[in-house]
Amino acid sequence: MSKATRDRMIETTAVLVRENGVTDTSFSDVLVASGAPRGSLYHYFPRGKAELIEEATRYGAGWVAGRLAAALERMDTASAVRGFAQLWTRLVRDSDYAAGCPVVAAALEGSRTPGAREAAGEGFKRWEELLAGGLERDGLSAEEAFPLATLIVSSLEGSVVLARAQRSTEPITRVADQLGGLIEDSVRRARPSPA
Amino acid sequence: MSKATRDRMIETTAVLVRENGVTDTSFSDVLVASGAPRGSLYHYFPRGKAELIEEATRYGAGWVAGRLAAALERMDTASAVRGFAQLWTRLVRDSDYAAGCPVVAAALEGSRTPGAREAAGEGFKRWEELLAGGLERDGLSAEEAFPLATLIVSSLEGSVVLARAQRSTEPITRVADQLGGLIEDSVRRARPSPA
Repeated sequence: MSKATRDRMIETTAVLVRENGVTDTSFSDVLVASGAPRGSLYHYFPRGKAELIEEATRYGAGWVAGRLAAALERMDTASAVRGFAQLWTRLVRDSDYAAGCPVVAAALEGSRTPGAREAAGEGFKRWEELLAGGLERDGLSAEEAFPLATLIVSSLEGSVVLARAQRSTEPITRVADQLGGLIEDSVRRARPSPA
Repeated sequence: MSKATRDRMIETTAVLVRENGVTDTSFSDVLVASGAPRGSLYHYFPRGKAELIEEATRYGAGWVAGRLAAALERMDTASAVRGFAQLWTRLVRDSDYAAGCPVVAAALEGSRTPGAREAAGEGFKRWEELLAGGLERDGLSAEEAFPLATLIVSSLEGSVVLARAQRSTEPITRVADQLGGLIEDSVRRARPSPA
């Protein structure tokens, strides 16, 4: 039960940070939204809000990594990237452009919440590695795959920021189309057709 | 003099928001950092902090747009993008990974500061249009140019977020290299060599 309460608080925090950022997510918001008993915060997170935000960042990054790894097992990298863009499109539209990425919110914390910033950096790296692995399996060399993976993570995250600012999912669609084409071109060049 | 004080407060706010985000930038921080007299805030910004943040976002977006337009007058789009990535690299490194983009910070405000969010959306659109104009001049069709411009803006902004999180400028370098190559390939394809 205690593990379940702690997990619920972490998930709730990730959802709140996604919309409101770190500073505007308060302990009382987390308590109300998670239904956790008052007094449970310092019990489960002795280092206070910094620890809760850190865990929420790790949870958000891990959730994406899990879905990404599963997608890359079932399909090529271009299709996995297009699928992720659709997931983001739905999330942003269904929240009326309120929801972004909790890992980006944590990345902007800098020295205010260094643990969260660090967890965000590790999360991005894990996504880059997963995508680079997919691209290598598709035929790219390691030297080609990692920089392209950085471009994929950076541009998808950036497109969600543009989408929220412009209240339109079109930036995500345009970026996904560009990335899909670019990945397919790179794979084609790396594996010349037998003709 | 009054115009100069107001401008200085706006510039100071943009610099503070770039590092601390919107919520953690307070009126008193702006007063201290700009040296503006107490009482000047509501005099110059009758709608309060929301108006100040809005103006700072517009200032930040306009500053980038001005530099981008000037760069595109002197060089092709690939070189202008590489130049911007170098500018970001310096800014992020010189601030010890504290400084990001004030327009991104404003974009994440959503319904908390809708005017700032809107100014961010317009700023991104202006950058997309400038880059699309450059790409068309380089030889791309309008249909090719605008989506590629969205990819450029999204991925550069995203790479700055990754750089801050990972405390390394390498994500910006990798994204700039990818974008430079991609733009050059697209231009080459659009303008086949006479050979």
